[in-house]
This record gives sequence, structure tokens and C-alpha cells, in this order.
Amino acid sequence: MADDRAIGVFDSGIGGLTVLAALARELPGESLVYLGDTARVPYGTRSPRTVLRYACQVADALVAHDVKALVVACNTATTHALPALQVAGRQLGLPVFGVIRPGVAEAVARTRTGHVGVLGTEGTVRGGRYQALLAQAGVRASAVACPLFVSLAEEGWHEGEIAEAVAQRYLGPLVGGPDTVILGCTHFPLMVDAIGRALPGVTLIDSASATAHAVAQGLAAEGRLTQGPRRAPRFLVTDNLERFRTVGTRFLGAAPEPVSLVDLVLGSGPFSEAAA
Amino acid sequence: MADDRAIGVFDSGIGGLTVLAALARELPGESLVYLGDTARVPYGTRSPRTVLRYACQVADALVAHDVKALVVACNTATTHALPALQVAGRQLGLPVFGVIRPGVAEAVARTRTGHVGVLGTEGTVRGGRYQALLAQAGVRASAVACPLFVSLAEEGWHEGEIAEAVAQRYLGPLVGGPDTVILGCTHFPLMVDAIGRALPGVTLIDSASATAHAVAQGLAAEGRLTQGPRRAPRFLVTDNLERFRTVGTRFLGAAPEPVSLVDLVLGSGPFSEAAA
Repeated sequence: MADDRAIGVFDSGIGGLTVLAALARELPGESLVYLGDTARVPYGTRSPRTVLRYACQVADALVAHDVKALVVACNTATTHALPALQVAGRQLGLPVFGVIRPGVAEAVARTRTGHVGVLGTEGTVRGGRYQALLAQAGVRASAVACPLFVSLAEEGWHEGEIAEAVAQRYLGPLVGGPDTVILGCTHFPLMVDAIGRALPGVTLIDSASATAHAVAQGLAAEGRLTQGPRRAPRFLVTDNLERFRTVGTRFLGAAPEPVSLVDLVLGSGPFSEAAA
Repeated sequence: MADDRAIGVFDSGIGGLTVLAALARELPGESLVYLGDTARVPYGTRSPRTVLRYACQVADALVAHDVKALVVACNTATTHALPALQVAGRQLGLPVFGVIRPGVAEAVARTRTGHVGVLGTEGTVRGGRYQALLAQAGVRASAVACPLFVSLAEEGWHEGEIAEAVAQRYLGPLVGGPDTVILGCTHFPLMVDAIGRALPGVTLIDSASATAHAVAQGLAAEGRLTQGPRRAPRFLVTDNLERFRTVGTRFLGAAPEPVSLVDLVLGSGPFSEAAA
């Protein structure tokens, strides 16, 4: 009953590599294929409608690579597209996982004061998905959009005076508030030192590990895990291979290879059709 | 012989509004229509091929609005797409202007030491168009990619400790070098105070004004200017009207209104066909 097809992981660009790395640690037998939509990154400043359309195109491209499950390794895409992708996925017999619910579950389990902070892109914070799930759990939420963390992570300026000044400016209003804070953007684990220094004593939740754990449990429950042998991960991007290699190495801790270019076709494929 | 059709101005997103404002000052009789490709901004990290494709689609959308000339108000698009757009424009009887050559001409005229700095996005600096034109003029060039200036300008963090620390980190290597520096990205005029403080005594060239001047001269030479009456400018974006209004106000000094959403169609239209 084991299913040895790959798990498809997708992100707007590079940040989802932190989720891919967590999946590789949690599921040593599984093969992984990653698609980064680097021609249209970032999703964080786009409208919900556009993010949904882009996410469906990426999902369709991964389905064409014969995957057994999809992991939406992008908080903005999870915010705006996960419900539609899960509906379409059920029709195709393909489980679809997001990064938000696992991070929320871990934060709810760990907060002692019942007050949780959420750091994300503009789209994730405005979308309100984290806040809604935390409210359902009876937990108070304080969400802050931190768009510059994305640029700092991609520039490789994780540490030092500038990273700390930016973290203090964004996070100052949270000091003395939440006891637990969710890193609600896949870029933010790279900024964890600066964030931790701006929020001393606060528990930081990296949703990448929580997501990998949820994917492992979900696939195990459906008997879809394999014991391997694992094939080497493959990487697909929609633009700029060279920058993906350079910047991706910062996120993955190793060069994301082999990587190839893929063209997305507008509106064709089961996910795009289901969402239209 | 006066042609009272509008001038089409396009940019990857919001930064080109600094060029639009300069055109409105320089050409008080002309009507302007602006298209910001906010669904796919930023162009600065994309490959040359993708930038060319996107720029042709935007040009085609503006041609459908019956413009008499096109201004590519984006340094990255000028770097990768201007030659192809100009070839196609000649076939259509439509002059196409970019932002690079005017900034270079002004810098060459003003440098006394024959050493000019260029600040731009990754794409503009890697594309090397500024460096090539300066070399042709016998001027030494030092180019620096400053991607965080874009995020800081969009976030509204033009001033203060963080803006100055980022400017010092990027520009420190230029101190004691060029006597004249070109702001080679339409976002950078907003950062002019921080840049000026990091480069004391250096002449900063804002290519927006130089471009507006070149457009006025070019259209006058062809008898295409009008004395008005000017119609109110119109704004088109490919995504996220709300963010364009908010962030655009910082760039234009007034709300960019009326703004409407436009869908770009892949590969249809004279510019896309000419470049294919």
C-alpha cells in the first residue's frame, strides 16, 4: 500500500525551502519535488484573487509531475488559496497541506498566557487566517506585518545592527504582550536571532517543523508513506535559476540542485479549473 | 499637427510614479496614462527574458489605450527591453523612451572627475546597460545593487536610523570614489536624504527629471506635443488597487486616482509579437 511517488512542495519563491528542509528531516524515506514561482514572487503584496490564481497554476504544474500530496509551503498562499486547493485536491484524491494550522496548533499548545503573536507578510496579516484560527482556539492574537524581514533574509543580512534595528521597530509594540510568537512567513526562520533579541523570553514557533510533523501524521493516517529509497529532491522554478541557486543555498543550507526552469500555463489543469 | 493623445508611462509597479510626476511638471499640456504591473512587481530580481516578456505585454496594453508615445519608467525594464520595444515602436510609428540614457547624459555632463556611481536593482546592475553607456562616454563607472532601498521606500521608511544604516552599508565602498551618482531605480529618489548623507559632497542624479526632459525634446522634435487641454491622468494596475493607492501616494505626493484594474493577455499585441 506504500505510495512511493514524491511529495510536491510549493512556494512563491525561495522561502519554502525552510519547509522542504524540515520535511526532509521528518520524512527520511520520502522523495520531494519543489516548485518556486520565482517569476512572480513575492505573493505577500498581491491581492487574494491573484494569489489564488497563481497558486492553482503552481499546483497544476506539480500534479503534472505525478505527486502524491501537495504542501503549500507559503503562508500567503495558504491564507488565500488553501481552502480552494483542498476542495480540488479531494476530487483528485490528493491531500493538500498548508503551513498555518500546524503553527497555530503548536502555539496554542505552548502559550501559557493565552496571547499569541503572529509575524507575517502584508497579505498574510490582512488575510486574517491566523487570527481567525487562534480566536477559534480561544487565544488572543496580535499580528504584525514585517515585510522587510523578507528582503533582509534574501539579501543575507540576517544578523547585525540593521537586522536588529528592523526587528526592534516592528516588534517593539509586542514587548510585554504575547508569550509565544509564530513566525508566519517561511522567510522568517532565517531572522530568528534578531527576532529573539527583540522579544526576549518569548517562545518562537517555526511553522516549518510543525508543518512537516503534520504532513507526516496526515500521510501516515492514509497509509501513503513509503520507506524509500528516497530519490534526490528536484527543484523547479519559473524564473532566474541563478538567483534561486545563490539565495536558496542560504535557506536550505545546501545548494538546491538539480534545478530546472518550468513554464506555467494560465488556467489549464484540474486545480485552476476547479477554482475558476 | 499637434497630437493630443496621451503619453503612456509604464513601470513594474509603483516607482515609475516619480517619472510620471516629473513628466507632469515638464509637459503641462500633455495627458498621461500610467500602467503599473503590480501583479508581477518587482522586475529587479527577474531574468532578462522574463522582464522582456512582461514589458512587451504592458506595452501592448498601453497601445490598446491609444497612446502616442511610450515611456519605460523602470530601469530594469529599460535595461532588458528597451531595444526590442524601440524596434517594434518604429514599425508602429510610436516613439519609445527609457530612463537610462537621459540619466547617463546628465551624469556625464556633470562629473568633473570622470567617475560616476550607479545605484540600481540586481537586474539593472547585472544587466550592465548603465556601465556600457558610461564607458562609451569615456567615464569610469562603479555600480552597486541596493535592493533594500526598494523595500524601505515602499514601507515608507525613508528616513531615520535604519534608512541611514542601510545606505551606509551599501554606499560605504563608494565614499571617496565617484563625484556623481545616478539613482538608477525609480524608487530611489524617495531615499535621497539617506543616500545623500552616506555620500557627502556627491552630486545625485535623479533620472526622473532627466527622462522627462528627454521625452519633451523628443516629442517636440517630431511635432507631437500638444498645448492641451490636459485630461486628468489615468492609472491602471494589474493587481491590488488598494496598496497602489496607499503606497503610490508616497511616490506621487497625491493619491493616484482614478485607478482601475487591467488584465494582461499573454503574447498578444504588436510588441509581444515583434519580440517573440
